[in-house]
Amino acid sequence: MSMTREEIRDLCVKSLEEKMVGTKEKNVDNGNGFYRYFFTNFPDLRVYFKGAEKFTAEDVKKSERFDKQGQRILLACHLIANVYTNEEVFKAYVRETINRHRIYKMDPALWMAFWTVFTGYLGSTGSLTDQQKAAWMELGKEFNAECQEHLKNSNLPYVH
Amino acid sequence: MSMTREEIRDLCVKSLEEKMVGTKEKNVDNGNGFYRYFFTNFPDLRVYFKGAEKFTAEDVKKSERFDKQGQRILLACHLIANVYTNEEVFKAYVRETINRHRIYKMDPALWMAFWTVFTGYLGSTGSLTDQQKAAWMELGKEFNAECQEHLKNSNLPYVH
Repeated sequence: MSMTREEIRDLCVKSLEEKMVGTKEKNVDNGNGFYRYFFTNFPDLRVYFKGAEKFTAEDVKKSERFDKQGQRILLACHLIANVYTNEEVFKAYVRETINRHRIYKMDPALWMAFWTVFTGYLGSTGSLTDQQKAAWMELGKEFNAECQEHLKNSNLPYVH
Repeated sequence: MSMTREEIRDLCVKSLEEKMVGTKEKNVDNGNGFYRYFFTNFPDLRVYFKGAEKFTAEDVKKSERFDKQGQRILLACHLIANVYTNEEVFKAYVRETINRHRIYKMDPALWMAFWTVFTGYLGSTGSLTDQQKAAWMELGKEFNAECQEHLKNSNLPYVH
């Protein structure tokens, strides 16, 4: 059964209610927690975080850098979910995200893989329904499609 | 007569329909056009754009830098309007914007002044109703309040 854009947005936004951004300790931990999950479950990807290539979850927890970085990535996920129904804005934000990551020379396959990591995180520390997960993966598929298109148009490596 | 957050969001989003972001010539020009308006009407503020301190509207029009910069600032305005009803996300995006501008050492009064410039641009090249303008200024007031709060918390100059 396919979902409308509105349904996908609402499901994703709802799933983030318990992972709200903000300045309170809980909010900061919502972002830091993403990196604890990430570094624990996908240690090979730590290579993209200069100086933190060997960080454990404990190191991340104590790290102000990952408090800030966590807040940034969590905000990005809130933004992308909230604007999903405004398709051109959604795609423009995807392109801007790609532009900002250019310097890191990431494997282009990671733009799709990210959504497995992110939904894994949401499921690991809260309640993520099957339907919410399906909504995020649908959003992620479209996110990735615009990523690859923009990488291609920018003469950068992309996934065919 | 006061407006609800939903009304404000809808009015602002609607006013941006003719200033859509995107990769087509018209969309790129929607962003570049902001800087043409800005540099023509507020030439003193060009000082914040290193290397472009003496740019005329004609220079901006031919500038790839301002095509990109224009797209970025226009996207930011789309994002902030679209998430206005999600208050914590709105405020987090404001703080992130402040963090990213830290290096430019801007006069903190400019965070409110921006909305006069932006609504001026919208009105100069399209239709901006009085109600839409009022909605943007209301959004801008709240945007600015979070800016000043975050500047203060970051031990940076702020407007009291």
